[in-house]
Amino acid sequence: MTDTVSVRRLTLAGAQKALAACLAKAEAMKVPQCIAVTDDGGHLLAFARMEGSKVMSIESATAKARTAASSRVQTGNVHAEVEIKLALATGGKLTNLKGGVPIIIEGQVVGAIGVGSGTGDQDREVALAGVAAIEGASAG
Amino acid sequence: MTDTVSVRRLTLAGAQKALAACLAKAEAMKVPQCIAVTDDGGHLLAFARMEGSKVMSIESATAKARTAASSRVQTGNVHAEVEIKLALATGGKLTNLKGGVPIIIEGQVVGAIGVGSGTGDQDREVALAGVAAIEGASAG
Amino acid sequence: MTDTVSVRRLTLAGAQKALAACLAKAEAMKVPQCIAVTDDGGHLLAFARMEGSKVMSIESATAKARTAASSRVQTGNVHAEVEIKLALATGGKLTNLKGGVPIIIEGQVVGAIGVGSGTGDQDREVALAGVAAIEGASAG
Amino acid sequence: MTDTVSVRRLTLAGAQKALAACLAKAEAMKVPQCIAVTDDGGHLLAFARMEGSKVMSIESATAKARTAASSRVQTGNVHAEVEIKLALATGGKLTNLKGGVPIIIEGQVVGAIGVGSGTGDQDREVALAGVAAIEGASAG
Repeated sequence: MTDTVSVRRLTLAGAQKALAACLAKAEAMKVPQCIAVTDDGGHLLAFARMEGSKVMSIESATAKARTAASSRVQTGNVHAEVEIKLALATGGKLTNLKGGVPIIIEGQVVGAIGVGSGTGDQDREVALAGVAAIEGASAG
Repeated sequence: MTDTVSVRRLTLAGAQKALAACLAKAEAMKVPQCIAVTDDGGHLLAFARMEGSKVMSIESATAKARTAASSRVQTGNVHAEVEIKLALATGGKLTNLKGGVPIIIEGQVVGAIGVGSGTGDQDREVALAGVAAIEGASAG
Repeated sequence: MTDTVSVRRLTLAGAQKALAACLAKAEAMKVPQCIAVTDDGGHLLAFARMEGSKVMSIESATAKARTAASSRVQTGNVHAEVEIKLALATGGKLTNLKGGVPIIIEGQVVGAIGVGSGTGDQDREVALAGVAAIEGASAG
Repeated sequence: MTDTVSVRRLTLAGAQKALAACLAKAEAMKVPQCIAVTDDGGHLLAFARMEGSKVMSIESATAKARTAASSRVQTGNVHAEVEIKLALATGGKLTNLKGGVPIIIEGQVVGAIGVGSGTGDQDREVALAGVAAIEGASAG
């Protein structure tokens, strides 16, 4: 049947597992974070804001996850010439801030993780810990 | 010192405990839900979206929690004449949809819970289960 | 109880005291200003717009205060590569314009001040005068 | 000269005087309020949020003042058939919630006051106390 296609998508249980791994990593790094996990469509599945993280990172962490789910690659690598235009053209829904990573299983994006409140590199490291918790998943 | 006042605020641990109780209740009721827990200022602390719940309830559940945090009472009791005007005057940030409840400890709002995807009464019932999980808390 | 944490928050009286100090400073400098004082969650507590200041600074002054409350540091120090992306990813809620300062008491952010209409350095100077008016407070 | 016209506008000092009268009235009534004072163009001049008022009323109080400045009459009297359409057509900038009153001197609107967090009638009563504090002013 070519009218429909079978896809794989992160469950709430999977999202919570990734979230727990991100929280453990952030605690080990002593960097309080906002952590968002979305499905393949960029819609929020699970979220946590740690004591001492930035309130406004609720939005940026969510935007990072949404962007990674949509683009299917980690955030932070869009050409400088293009990144601001993309953010503007989508009303801020897309961001190239580091810290958004897709969750990829067998070549398919099943969800994404966005982390914010640390440096871009810290955010990315915490997000990758979440991907590592999902069996058979990579961040591309 | 009267420049500042001492207040109590829900921690992430407290928010996660409330969220877990809401999830358990929703599962027992067999009603998939979106569940948002905020601090006293209406900023998101923890969130979960169950399989089979409505994607757009991400926003309404969050709005319900924000409204309960701000108004300090359960949502759903604003006069019909006023409720739509309040929603419009706040850009949709306030809602009178049932399912938002404050978490009150010793007369002080420390956070709030918003639930959406079921009927208003189901949403409220799930939210109240979250409040009951917090020691010494009531929903007013 | 670990479900909640005790925190300190600026009162309206404290916010008005800080605001009055900012106004006195701006008058002494002969620089008309917009001045916003928020609580620790970035929500407005007190505001004043002086004769001759810029109408649009109502929004930028408020954004500066909100940013300082969230980030817990003075605005103006975010890396140039990141600042525009942060503003876009939060729908303009975060700004790196100089003139936003947190009000910190015993290591805790209790509120923030944002000032706009002068140069960045003038704005910051006026905001710092507000922090100095709060007993035991520093701007980090 | 017909290219320009001379108008009267509320100063910051005038706005602060009205604000102080509103605060005194709200305290006497034991109803915590958010109070916004704008100029004749609907732009914020002075603002205060009392302990125990609703965070989300920051926006509704401001919208009420803006509406009264623009329409030159007290809010709450627009026909039910029209009020929601007006709110929608202006993106929520106009509201017919009670509690917005113009400050009129010699037939000219010089500013406006918006109050929110109580009932509509309480909000209006507090706003009127602010108008009464301005010499020669009425609320129409």
